[in-house]
Amino acid sequence: MDQVWTDHKALLGEVEEGIRSGLQSKVALVNKISTYILNSGGKRIRPLLLIVSAHLCQYDKKDHILLGAGIVEFIHTATLLHDDVIDNAEIRRGIAPARVLWGNQASILVGDYLYTLALSLTVKINDYDVNTLLADTCLQMAEGEMLQLKHNSDLSLSETTYFQIIESKTSALISASCQFGAILAKASEKEREALACYGRNLGIAFQVADDTLDYIADDQRLGKSLGEDLKEGKITLPLLHLLKHCNQKEKAWLEKMVAGKDFLQEDLKKAIDLMTFYGSIQYATKRAQDFAESAKKDLSIFDDSPHRRALSTVADYVVQRDH
Amino acid sequence: MDQVWTDHKALLGEVEEGIRSGLQSKVALVNKISTYILNSGGKRIRPLLLIVSAHLCQYDKKDHILLGAGIVEFIHTATLLHDDVIDNAEIRRGIAPARVLWGNQASILVGDYLYTLALSLTVKINDYDVNTLLADTCLQMAEGEMLQLKHNSDLSLSETTYFQIIESKTSALISASCQFGAILAKASEKEREALACYGRNLGIAFQVADDTLDYIADDQRLGKSLGEDLKEGKITLPLLHLLKHCNQKEKAWLEKMVAGKDFLQEDLKKAIDLMTFYGSIQYATKRAQDFAESAKKDLSIFDDSPHRRALSTVADYVVQRDH
Repeated sequence: MDQVWTDHKALLGEVEEGIRSGLQSKVALVNKISTYILNSGGKRIRPLLLIVSAHLCQYDKKDHILLGAGIVEFIHTATLLHDDVIDNAEIRRGIAPARVLWGNQASILVGDYLYTLALSLTVKINDYDVNTLLADTCLQMAEGEMLQLKHNSDLSLSETTYFQIIESKTSALISASCQFGAILAKASEKEREALACYGRNLGIAFQVADDTLDYIADDQRLGKSLGEDLKEGKITLPLLHLLKHCNQKEKAWLEKMVAGKDFLQEDLKKAIDLMTFYGSIQYATKRAQDFAESAKKDLSIFDDSPHRRALSTVADYVVQRDH
Repeated sequence: MDQVWTDHKALLGEVEEGIRSGLQSKVALVNKISTYILNSGGKRIRPLLLIVSAHLCQYDKKDHILLGAGIVEFIHTATLLHDDVIDNAEIRRGIAPARVLWGNQASILVGDYLYTLALSLTVKINDYDVNTLLADTCLQMAEGEMLQLKHNSDLSLSETTYFQIIESKTSALISASCQFGAILAKASEKEREALACYGRNLGIAFQVADDTLDYIADDQRLGKSLGEDLKEGKITLPLLHLLKHCNQKEKAWLEKMVAGKDFLQEDLKKAIDLMTFYGSIQYATKRAQDFAESAKKDLSIFDDSPHRRALSTVADYVVQRDH
């Protein structure tokens, strides 16, 4: 993966420049907060996917690639700002989120600002398909977040609904980033659809891996505390597997723990031990890997090329990462 | 004004129908909350302005008028949902705001949903000018809200900045609603600009009148408590006038009161008495009326017609209303 980042370093540098120069609000505080959140350790995976997808479809006009890369990152950042407020987050990627520094109100408003900035930049591309794609994507993301909120602390959540949530809240924008590249390249419907599927499977792999890391990564590397999802009432795949396979007594204990939320570190450790015992971590890891494999298969309609190989590498990376 | 509402009753009825049928989220809770807020007593002044502006410019194709009317109302409703969270509002138009019933989190997310629904409907109109107008408007609204937040409880706020805030947070969308009608009608640049100015002045008149009502309306009619703005740290025109004209002792008392926020009803009464004594209410009322007059003058490029007269009536109405 290092090689992929290196290969795109120059262009991603220009994306950074575009993001910086795109922030030109007359209200200084808007730029300050936006800059803080945009510089808080995001890897720019969505811009990378847009760039590589465009190149894969033989498009290399830089202007729209840079604009598109900025747009998807602005949308992603807007969702982070709102998510932090919704999750009452105290830490994000190892540092204080904007809401802790400037308050929930500013976080909501700068989120709104970045959403609309993305929309305003999208209009400049003046392409019906791009406009439709991003509008539909944002709608789906908001719906996914609402579905997640509705099922907060809901231990009767089905796997189907879990996947529906992560497909909407995470996969939609990752898939859109890939499709964005295809649309710019005026790729065929078949190519666009392949990249849409790749992005969808990649996004699911990414989120399932992330949800699993929440139970296994050490604190420092993940940049947030272990078991944070559980504390926020987010019921994810390892826990769903555990609930299905543990005995009644263990299930009753888990229900009580989730209802309480403010559980002790030793309770969390016990839950993780159960997940290990019942193979829940292994199951979730395997599911993530399967989605990553599906993502790679979606690329099979494309001839072998450095770009296709880069996308395959990204698929391997999202299920291996242990940052 | 009653006559204006009556004249547009049928079309506004179709707007309602469009709004209802536009809410088709797969997540039932999204529709439920959206319906609640959309039915919580808004007068549909923005849809009305769009309709009348389009008619004034000789446009009568219903499809896009209805779509446009829904779009501006969805945007307005999205801002209400976020504003309620930002203001920590306990009451809105005499009833509990969505955040009180379903929580801040749902309010933020459904606000995001309605913003993106508006964006998604806008894309369907597939008109570059409409897309640009709405994107710029939403950006300006978010900036206006941030500027307001920045100057919360700031008694050194200048009148210039006060007007900048209300022009962004309120006037922008009202002006956009009028311009939207002009764009649909493919009106001349001059006509569009006239409607833009009309909307801008109308919006300022509307907001200044609203800010003044906060100190004079009786509780039941306004649908919120008297002095609510002051409690939320919103420094508005009557208070700015008072601060400029009262004596040092009174100013020091006002500063202490604003800093405290949780003031007593008798303190509020004293502040209102001072506003009356120093002519602050009268001053703000006169300013609102002046903006309404400017709005009417902006219409002078149009020949006399029922539509032009309807817009003039709206201008008179916004500074007279005492609901």
